[in-house]
Amino acid sequence: MKCAEGIEARQVDETAINIDPIQVGGRLTADAMKAVIAYGDGYSVCDNCRKPFRLDYIKSPPIAEFHTDLASWLDMDACRVVPGARRGFQAVCQGLVSKGDPVILTALSHYTEFIAVESVKGLPREIPKDAENQITADAAAETIERVIRTEGKTPALLFVEGVDYQFGNHHDVQGIAKVAHSYDIPVLYNGAYTVGILPVSGKELGVDFVIGSGHKSMAAPAPSGLVATTAEYADQIFATTAVKGDQTGRTFGIKEVAMMGCTLMGVTVMGMMASFPHVKERVLNWDLELANSRIIIDAFSAIEGTTIISEMPRRHTLTRIDTRESFDRVAQTHKKRGFFFTSALGKKGITGVIPGATKIWKFNTYGMTKAQAEYTAEAFLDIARENGLTVAD
Amino acid sequence: MKCAEGIEARQVDETAINIDPIQVGGRLTADAMKAVIAYGDGYSVCDNCRKPFRLDYIKSPPIAEFHTDLASWLDMDACRVVPGARRGFQAVCQGLVSKGDPVILTALSHYTEFIAVESVKGLPREIPKDAENQITADAAAETIERVIRTEGKTPALLFVEGVDYQFGNHHDVQGIAKVAHSYDIPVLYNGAYTVGILPVSGKELGVDFVIGSGHKSMAAPAPSGLVATTAEYADQIFATTAVKGDQTGRTFGIKEVAMMGCTLMGVTVMGMMASFPHVKERVLNWDLELANSRIIIDAFSAIEGTTIISEMPRRHTLTRIDTRESFDRVAQTHKKRGFFFTSALGKKGITGVIPGATKIWKFNTYGMTKAQAEYTAEAFLDIARENGLTVAD
Repeated sequence: MKCAEGIEARQVDETAINIDPIQVGGRLTADAMKAVIAYGDGYSVCDNCRKPFRLDYIKSPPIAEFHTDLASWLDMDACRVVPGARRGFQAVCQGLVSKGDPVILTALSHYTEFIAVESVKGLPREIPKDAENQITADAAAETIERVIRTEGKTPALLFVEGVDYQFGNHHDVQGIAKVAHSYDIPVLYNGAYTVGILPVSGKELGVDFVIGSGHKSMAAPAPSGLVATTAEYADQIFATTAVKGDQTGRTFGIKEVAMMGCTLMGVTVMGMMASFPHVKERVLNWDLELANSRIIIDAFSAIEGTTIISEMPRRHTLTRIDTRESFDRVAQTHKKRGFFFTSALGKKGITGVIPGATKIWKFNTYGMTKAQAEYTAEAFLDIARENGLTVAD
Repeated sequence: MKCAEGIEARQVDETAINIDPIQVGGRLTADAMKAVIAYGDGYSVCDNCRKPFRLDYIKSPPIAEFHTDLASWLDMDACRVVPGARRGFQAVCQGLVSKGDPVILTALSHYTEFIAVESVKGLPREIPKDAENQITADAAAETIERVIRTEGKTPALLFVEGVDYQFGNHHDVQGIAKVAHSYDIPVLYNGAYTVGILPVSGKELGVDFVIGSGHKSMAAPAPSGLVATTAEYADQIFATTAVKGDQTGRTFGIKEVAMMGCTLMGVTVMGMMASFPHVKERVLNWDLELANSRIIIDAFSAIEGTTIISEMPRRHTLTRIDTRESFDRVAQTHKKRGFFFTSALGKKGITGVIPGATKIWKFNTYGMTKAQAEYTAEAFLDIARENGLTVAD
């Protein structure tokens, strides 16, 4: 079925149980879909833009209120919506990092954090992970010391992931923030896998910036995200324009440089807003999500030769798994090779695993019902049994 | 009617003839609306992302092909889609402008061009407009000379608007580009009011960068836009990441720094793509759009005391008008004051003028049928007559 010339209508979540590692937190709510339809047109949110002419001041639709609500929901003082988490990283780097400044990232940092640092010509330096794939406060302290020694200056910023994209592991954000602050290094919390998924309090974490992803974890269309900060940093990060037309004498009001003038517009911010009441609700049900995840983890643990690489017990629905000694063994001799696995999953109505992947791969159970989790767990067990793998009772 | 909790469903173009200066080129086509519904979910376009894992390489949906088509449609060598024209300005500035570099803008440049320059700490310098609100090649040459003299270095970049946002006037882009190139200054063409509205050939204009706005002029959802360039500048502007994880040794493939890794995602790029065949078609009907515009311009010209401030005859559908000696005279004594005008327009089913505006304001007739243009022209005449203004036969 085509939705436009040369474009197939996408029907993934309509027709299958999706366990894609990056997609499940960004599926629209029904309200977001309705808002997307109502606000599809380009400048749809600008009907009631009045002085001082800035998008985050618009009252109808209630964009101004949404900004305030986001900040207080995250226990921060100020928030802006941006075209994706990466644009939040970029905004903070623009405000705090100068050419040649070292910036601390971690061995589990997402590539967009590196690129944000690179975009302002900073020097990314990693905190190593330990044997359990954890970023610890001790490792942070050692890295800061090492960087100060080798670069001759204090890092301008430290990034830390609440939950990383590689293992879905939690890290000691509080401890790391304390260490960083003892060197007066501001701390950016990458909440791409947490904000909108589980409860997040910037104040409790003790961080200076909270970044969230709308399209990854807030049931919003892409590109969307947010950057929240404290009163201490808001003026610096959200600095208003200071340039002037040298011939016309024009100045540009209260437009913010790091926001490129106006914040996220149109369909993206409206989808985010329409989902927000549901997102606030769903983070409170995080325990149910973990329980569903564990149903599937238990199934994998029963399949001989399968190892969960992520921390155990699981504290997130994103999991990295090693099936080299189980499903990949089957692939060695199967006529479909590695594709047997995703093909078998497809027949059972499960999607979201990269076709051909049977070695080390990731899945995310977020947003399932318990019945779907049980069905999915049983499907993995069935595929194992059908292909001669040993399954514990 | 609400589309979600606390959010009124927008019904502007469904219920009225819209002459908003910035909205009319960004209304979705029916195909774009269908694509928006099919691709609403966050990571909707990433189902078939395979090595080398970059969004503009995705073949299904045909995003890779769309990028190639955009470049050739604009007579340029390479193109990327970005979250709005402003992010295109920013990308070019990131690639070409260093701290303290002078950058030439014009007296009619949009504020987002200034902010893009400010974001990389460049020094914006304006080419003055002449008495006819034109930016001329002579003025460009004088400005370049002045800036070289006062700043002691050649400007790193020159911005010029194909059609400016203040008057909707065309400017001598070819002549200005020739002058800039004689100083080896690369030229950025701001096509926010032209790309997607009228035929644009970067080659014919002789420019190095073409920037377009999806949500302003390509019937696409916000935020969306494009940056196109020549083979000469593509490697510099679309430079791939060069950083490395110092502990993990990780590198990040062919992700482009100025694109923040991946180009425009989800609903925004899909809306742009679905509208594209229609957009290619509509730019060829520009003469019909101008003819409709002139029907309304003729009406205004018949209302005593009304002056068209934009260049005449009109060569664009965006027009700046001075009604201080016509409708604003009425406002002086009308019990609704300035609001009488938009109120009267509202009763006739016409929207898009800022409530209360009766002095100097703008409108855009783009996308009307001839019948709608005639109706709108008649409505302005009626309101003039009903309020005692003299209307020529």
